[in-house]
Amino acid sequence: MQFKITREYIDELKQIVEDGDEKRAIEVLKGLHAADIAEIYDDLNIEEAKFLYLLLDGDRAANVLAELEENDRENFLAALPSDVIAKQFIDFMDSDDAADVIADLPDDRREEVLAQLVDMGQAGDIVDLLNYHEDTAGGLMAKEMITVNEKWNVETCIKEIRKLAGEIDDVYVVYVIDDDRVLKGILSLKKLIISSNEMLVSDICNTNIISVKADAPAEEVAIISRKYDMVTLPVVDRIGRLIGRITIDDIVDVMQEEAERDYQLASGLVEDVEPSDTIWVLTRARLPWLIIGLAGGILGARVIRIFESDMTINTAIAFFLPLIAAMGGNVGVQSSSIVVQAIASQSVGLDSVFKRLVKEFSVAMLNGILCASILLIVNLLLLDSLALTFSVSIALFIVIVFASISGTFIPLTLHRLKIDPALATGPFITTINDITGMLIYLSIARYAFLNF
Amino acid sequence: MQFKITREYIDELKQIVEDGDEKRAIEVLKGLHAADIAEIYDDLNIEEAKFLYLLLDGDRAANVLAELEENDRENFLAALPSDVIAKQFIDFMDSDDAADVIADLPDDRREEVLAQLVDMGQAGDIVDLLNYHEDTAGGLMAKEMITVNEKWNVETCIKEIRKLAGEIDDVYVVYVIDDDRVLKGILSLKKLIISSNEMLVSDICNTNIISVKADAPAEEVAIISRKYDMVTLPVVDRIGRLIGRITIDDIVDVMQEEAERDYQLASGLVEDVEPSDTIWVLTRARLPWLIIGLAGGILGARVIRIFESDMTINTAIAFFLPLIAAMGGNVGVQSSSIVVQAIASQSVGLDSVFKRLVKEFSVAMLNGILCASILLIVNLLLLDSLALTFSVSIALFIVIVFASISGTFIPLTLHRLKIDPALATGPFITTINDITGMLIYLSIARYAFLNF
Repeated sequence: MQFKITREYIDELKQIVEDGDEKRAIEVLKGLHAADIAEIYDDLNIEEAKFLYLLLDGDRAANVLAELEENDRENFLAALPSDVIAKQFIDFMDSDDAADVIADLPDDRREEVLAQLVDMGQAGDIVDLLNYHEDTAGGLMAKEMITVNEKWNVETCIKEIRKLAGEIDDVYVVYVIDDDRVLKGILSLKKLIISSNEMLVSDICNTNIISVKADAPAEEVAIISRKYDMVTLPVVDRIGRLIGRITIDDIVDVMQEEAERDYQLASGLVEDVEPSDTIWVLTRARLPWLIIGLAGGILGARVIRIFESDMTINTAIAFFLPLIAAMGGNVGVQSSSIVVQAIASQSVGLDSVFKRLVKEFSVAMLNGILCASILLIVNLLLLDSLALTFSVSIALFIVIVFASISGTFIPLTLHRLKIDPALATGPFITTINDITGMLIYLSIARYAFLNF
Repeated sequence: MQFKITREYIDELKQIVEDGDEKRAIEVLKGLHAADIAEIYDDLNIEEAKFLYLLLDGDRAANVLAELEENDRENFLAALPSDVIAKQFIDFMDSDDAADVIADLPDDRREEVLAQLVDMGQAGDIVDLLNYHEDTAGGLMAKEMITVNEKWNVETCIKEIRKLAGEIDDVYVVYVIDDDRVLKGILSLKKLIISSNEMLVSDICNTNIISVKADAPAEEVAIISRKYDMVTLPVVDRIGRLIGRITIDDIVDVMQEEAERDYQLASGLVEDVEPSDTIWVLTRARLPWLIIGLAGGILGARVIRIFESDMTINTAIAFFLPLIAAMGGNVGVQSSSIVVQAIASQSVGLDSVFKRLVKEFSVAMLNGILCASILLIVNLLLLDSLALTFSVSIALFIVIVFASISGTFIPLTLHRLKIDPALATGPFITTINDITGMLIYLSIARYAFLNF
């Protein structure tokens, strides 16, 4: 039922391209969804992709281009002349996708492609959309939608839909506006179908509108549409005039990208990378965290050096350095990720920072007591030195509590300072807790060996 | 435009409940979306929630219940008698939500509630849906949908829609079936509206159907609907008969839950937790990873102990133990998270495991050379011992390469063994790489101090 790319299929396609067999190529691509044709791109070289994609008719070519990954799309378009980009792709795209593609072009080519467009309405829409930042509602919205006047009756609406239906995909609702284009209501096609021809739009439309302003950030758009189960979300300007609509597929993409980004940040990657990226891109994404980790490690080495004399006498102190550092890091990551996720989903609720820290403190106490007790029992059985046994467990308890508090407090503080708290989860919290943990442990151990 | 819960609003609601002022309560809740009324739950006690939610009319009460978080819903329903659950909530819910709610009830109450339902069609649908595992297409689908026979014309379709529209929300398409209920096509409401009354369904419907089988896993459903930008996805049985449909809002929830789960696993949390959960739930979610980390730390201490004599002579060896352990852990997490994400989004492509490991090896070499060189320069300036300086950098290089390879290989292997690779990203890879890293470092240091 779904298409699965196989090695055989790719080999066949490559053979067809090599033979230059256009008829056969069209035949082989015919049954495929645009998303599948876009997926094949990864397994073709650029000449093969050009041969195949330029055989598609305008609407399909446009959809394939919209489905391509950003990097792939840029590479592909770089190999095409501006007039081909304009007349074979952009003219047929939805305005939101078209604006995204144009925005990614180099400056000089952007003007060239816009000038070559045949559809002047499309060119105007694209220029309008380019004004919005890509991470806002305006940057996500498309201009294609069906609007009806609140004074119309059902019959007039249906006529309007018939007129525009050819150009606009994914019509589930029509937007009801007044003479000033102010959004007044939403009318589902279902409601239109079940209503009689002479009924007034204003009487049957849903006036409990959920909409977003053009400058609303993309994350907020995603949260609203998820919360209210919206399939399309109308976008309005400052005085409530309808200027576009965002469809759920774009919102789903935003959600997915955000989730991937947070996951990658938590894993210490600073770029959105995939295994298929180049070695250099993959290296670049990893280096920042590694260098922070390295700096933390070097700093940690300096901290340990302060206690060199203690360790020369009691070498066993060194056994537990990695344990303490690792546990501090782990606990910090756990605490911060809970806060970061709550902030991301706006489910932080009305609890105050203080209340949250008190709770985190209780959780940390419980975890700390449990872990420290386990370690105490193990070390009582395995270690000879009581001073070390108790030092390690007491330090572990304190480190767990400290790391929990800092793991909760740091992202909350960053959020208040309008800095993305996800930045803090991976490297920073781990490194801070590593070093602090060792300092706490070594100080306790020194005190214990000197006094007991 | 959107509703924002404020402390004042909650206080007003609490006052209204205290006064028992039903009229005023209905008034205050009137303009609110079900999702908002559900969100208030967190700030109410159970008696207040009961008072308010039981004032809502059936459809809204059902929507609110569907929007509540699972834990909250279970607590709330535990406080209600079975007949109220059945007649005030379940009877009005969509079959998929109703089945989810019923599935979460304790065994004895499940039968009681089912027996109290007034709508026998609903009861039948729920019993059918309870047969499917919640993490499959069958577990996600609802029975509410509009089906039309392929032999019908547009006029008959519209009559059918008029007949059913009251019961079914979110109708964007109707499903075209033959006399055996086999899915033959999909007909959008837009297409219906623009077609003339006497046209045949079979002539105007889209027969390029994308559907899923009832036993398809939820992740696959999410991937398909994201890839093909589907707003609803039809679900068929083994011989292609239509048995339900999945709406995008449920798919969005699946995506979000999966993303949160992966994020939490990567952060070392084994349960889906939020800051508002109880102290015990929050502790329980963290303990497993902490105990694995603790076990790894204790094992690490045993490994270091093997090299006790070396460190007694050269205490400075201990300075870099945490650095080596941390870098091994960091690199392992980075590598594994790239693989885990690629597996999750099914973007692993056609590359073989071997090719992937070769690439990972190159990235690791590059990262390793860069990090080891930085450390070498720093230590040449800061350390007195050349043997230690070179030992640490060589060990760091080897550890980075080793950790990259194991971080790539382990999740790929788990995936082959049908074990969720996300389980491996957090604790296991970190712990394995911590210990191996220290073993490599200490062995090199021993060799260096003995020979140079």
